[in-house]
Amino acid sequence: MVSNVETRRSDCPISCSLDLLGDKWSLLIVRDMVFGRKRYFKEFFASDEGIATNILTDRLKRLEDNGIVSKQPDLENGRQIVYTLTEKGVALIPVLVELLCWGAVYDGVSQFDLDKVRQILQDTRSRQRFMRELKKRCTSTP
Amino acid sequence: MVSNVETRRSDCPISCSLDLLGDKWSLLIVRDMVFGRKRYFKEFFASDEGIATNILTDRLKRLEDNGIVSKQPDLENGRQIVYTLTEKGVALIPVLVELLCWGAVYDGVSQFDLDKVRQILQDTRSRQRFMRELKKRCTSTP
Repeated sequence: MVSNVETRRSDCPISCSLDLLGDKWSLLIVRDMVFGRKRYFKEFFASDEGIATNILTDRLKRLEDNGIVSKQPDLENGRQIVYTLTEKGVALIPVLVELLCWGAVYDGVSQFDLDKVRQILQDTRSRQRFMRELKKRCTSTP
Repeated sequence: MVSNVETRRSDCPISCSLDLLGDKWSLLIVRDMVFGRKRYFKEFFASDEGIATNILTDRLKRLEDNGIVSKQPDLENGRQIVYTLTEKGVALIPVLVELLCWGAVYDGVSQFDLDKVRQILQDTRSRQRFMRELKKRCTSTP
């Protein structure tokens, strides 16, 4: 699925990416799916950042409209909706990992395992391995 | 420089990064400095995306307050301000490159050299080289 050309500010791929992801919440939902294996609305809602329900509803709809997330009825409970990442969504893992490394190194977060993140940042191979593991996790059945 | 802890939504490094960069414009200004070697307000203002002057002023101030950009009077024309990336700003190159690759692959932009971007995306070594070249460019005198 391709984003609506009319909403593009330019043909620059970075600008196109930010047209879809340039807000404070969309990538946090993708983060929850990648790192937290979250799949339900109530799980995203419970994240530490305290997203409002209307913003969460809007961002999930936009992520779905842009082919980053897909939704299906839960096989075990048909009234619940399960959200999963599409291939396009899984392809955002490198973006998330770079934001993780940058935030960990330059924003001095005390409660996070900085040493581990710095190790990933400095060593290309371990970063690649980390991304492969995340991708595998996202594309396997929970 | 560390971002204000009070404005943080959580201690997650990805969330912290998005507290600073999660909008449609901040990373485009950094992009202009990395890829376009832009340094002046009027140069950022002239970019294809058509940023409004008040938004540009606000984002440059925020980037400066968060230690991503620094500003000095232009040595050749003291009335002009020159903006440059700090070390923290240069460290955003991998984030930009991943957004570039993702946008180029998943948003089918016709006017961009997709083949070149796909080559960077698929080959880890060439991606590393590309990032090193960009970093070198940003830390050398124009």
